[in-house]
Amino acid sequence: MKKNKLLMLVLMLTICGGTFAQELSNFWNQKPIISPEITETEVTFRLMAPEADSVKIMGGFTPTVKMKTQFGEMDVPSAVDMTKDENGLWSITMPVPAVELYTYSFIVDGLTLNDPSNILLQRDGTRYLSVLLVPGEKTENYFEANKRGDMHQVWYDSKTLGLNRRMFVYTPYGYETSGKKYPVLYLLHGAGGDEDAWSTMGRTRQILDNLIEKGLAEPMICVMPNGNPNQMAAITTKLPQSELDFRDPANRNLYVNSIVKDIVPYVESNFRVIADADHRAIAGLSMGGGHTISTANEYPGMFQYICPLSMGIWGEQPEIDDKLKGLKEAGYKMYWLACGKTDFVWESAKKLDAKLTENGLKHTFFVTEGGHTWANWRVYLNTFAPLLFK
Amino acid sequence: MKKNKLLMLVLMLTICGGTFAQELSNFWNQKPIISPEITETEVTFRLMAPEADSVKIMGGFTPTVKMKTQFGEMDVPSAVDMTKDENGLWSITMPVPAVELYTYSFIVDGLTLNDPSNILLQRDGTRYLSVLLVPGEKTENYFEANKRGDMHQVWYDSKTLGLNRRMFVYTPYGYETSGKKYPVLYLLHGAGGDEDAWSTMGRTRQILDNLIEKGLAEPMICVMPNGNPNQMAAITTKLPQSELDFRDPANRNLYVNSIVKDIVPYVESNFRVIADADHRAIAGLSMGGGHTISTANEYPGMFQYICPLSMGIWGEQPEIDDKLKGLKEAGYKMYWLACGKTDFVWESAKKLDAKLTENGLKHTFFVTEGGHTWANWRVYLNTFAPLLFK
Repeated sequence: MKKNKLLMLVLMLTICGGTFAQELSNFWNQKPIISPEITETEVTFRLMAPEADSVKIMGGFTPTVKMKTQFGEMDVPSAVDMTKDENGLWSITMPVPAVELYTYSFIVDGLTLNDPSNILLQRDGTRYLSVLLVPGEKTENYFEANKRGDMHQVWYDSKTLGLNRRMFVYTPYGYETSGKKYPVLYLLHGAGGDEDAWSTMGRTRQILDNLIEKGLAEPMICVMPNGNPNQMAAITTKLPQSELDFRDPANRNLYVNSIVKDIVPYVESNFRVIADADHRAIAGLSMGGGHTISTANEYPGMFQYICPLSMGIWGEQPEIDDKLKGLKEAGYKMYWLACGKTDFVWESAKKLDAKLTENGLKHTFFVTEGGHTWANWRVYLNTFAPLLFK
Repeated sequence: MKKNKLLMLVLMLTICGGTFAQELSNFWNQKPIISPEITETEVTFRLMAPEADSVKIMGGFTPTVKMKTQFGEMDVPSAVDMTKDENGLWSITMPVPAVELYTYSFIVDGLTLNDPSNILLQRDGTRYLSVLLVPGEKTENYFEANKRGDMHQVWYDSKTLGLNRRMFVYTPYGYETSGKKYPVLYLLHGAGGDEDAWSTMGRTRQILDNLIEKGLAEPMICVMPNGNPNQMAAITTKLPQSELDFRDPANRNLYVNSIVKDIVPYVESNFRVIADADHRAIAGLSMGGGHTISTANEYPGMFQYICPLSMGIWGEQPEIDDKLKGLKEAGYKMYWLACGKTDFVWESAKKLDAKLTENGLKHTFFVTEGGHTWANWRVYLNTFAPLLFK
């Protein structure tokens, strides 16, 4: 702590110029800024910015406004003014928003920044956002459980993609000592995400830890690969990307093939896994929902649990009936589709629901409020994970 | 990417108010801001902040000034002005600084923020800082190697501390399939750090991967525990801390005891480890250097490789001669002490060097320029790791 304070002092002195003594005195006497500060009824955000003319806050909990965009009319969050006190401390106190995990930013004279007093920061693709986690029934499983599983960042060779690639693998509490074999959930992220998305934004470890600790879900391994087939790993590694054009129809299913041919074999030979279809589940959101649908269709019988989230059938897919009939014939235990009613993929999800019905595939269509959001994807994981491997 | 751009659009529209059409046009036609942009000779930093009156940059590469502090006269970085163009884009171009991994921040009208265009962000205790990694011989091993090891975030029970705690464990490339047993380096962080510090700020995985790939270091496991004995894990987990007062002399060695009684046994029963003293090394920086010295002194013969970094003997330690004699008697293969000449612990390191000599303990005192910095600790790891287990 001393080191931090010294560094901050150094910083203040160098930016404040002349009046060292006064600044020094201010610095050592100032109270640390607490933000966000949450009570049972209110939450307060604070930012020290004496020179700013305008400080706003914007996040998942600020009021939404209707806006027309090229994607249609959408509810988008608005920025809310904060108030400056005589010391230059900006703040806003508001009623605690609905129980949820939110992200937010400050906007200081038009410039977006994170809350420097908040240690909880999440990377969403290329951006970092501050996190507000409101406790309550809905978010109970997003907090740390008492019995926590391990998270492994492992590298595997994908012969299909010609790359050595990284994935995150969750092993449940007790894995080291139980000697048991476990079922596996393959959990896929969406466009803009990477192998880190489900574990940070999705709170996968916390959700599975809590569900397993409560006896609601079977102890399982969860594999979170990188679904961008030209990447070896998240852009934070700065590893080069491959040049292969994955929009070329000839390469379209390469990633789906790599799941079955590279990832599943790696997991089944490096972890204590029950290596049969009854103990394999595949789920994914958005683009990963597309990967889930394709993997099920291209490799019928491989996964007995199939859970596309916030995704469906886009455009013309003349082969879809044949593919679904093939899947029906091969057999599966659960087809669990989820989508929010205001999601921009809602129509495509309804189309998948209809196609499944039309072709006689028993399934669940789990319909929620809301759109294409992590708020929904965490709920979906929390809802379908207890249904797996039973 | 589309999702990100949409979110940014939403953000811009909500913060810009009235003139939607113009903003929309500006937004979709604007080029992405690249920062930092590094060539062979120059580096440019950029920040879009049309409303700002002053934007500065401050980091490990900005000129230092002498400043008197309560810790004595120190070289501290100064903030350097950036220049605004007609579009409100602030920038600065400077010669590429000496090859190193630096952190930096922008200071906008007195407010410190990270570079929003830079995906490389490091957490140093309670702060996040942007990263500039200048390529060259010195930093060669800080980039990703071709053969990469895995990183495991594992939870273990510390009976000594009465807590279930997290540590990071690196396993070298090939660990999964080699069937071999490996030596282990226990690598300890300093005050303000946690189990994540060595892997992010220290680039431990990259350094060990590169050294092993080049045949310079023995393939080894590296264990990075949390050295704050009241913490279960880094503050980012928001787990509660224990109430035990570790400044109480009665509790002083509890963490050191937990290394030997909890951590080493956990590692030796859960990883393929050569479980003898010849294949155990302990190293640590600052507070972790203190833990290293104490562990060696309290458990002579347990670790054959002992590497305190940027630490030495503080104050009166009447027992030190007896402890060092005990260590000498028990035997060890390497005692490798490192410190920078401008480090505020320099005198204490010299005192340890003298005490080792005085008591007849063969050792290396690796002296460098510079102070109490990650720049030095990365160099030390890169230097002593090749000496281990040979």
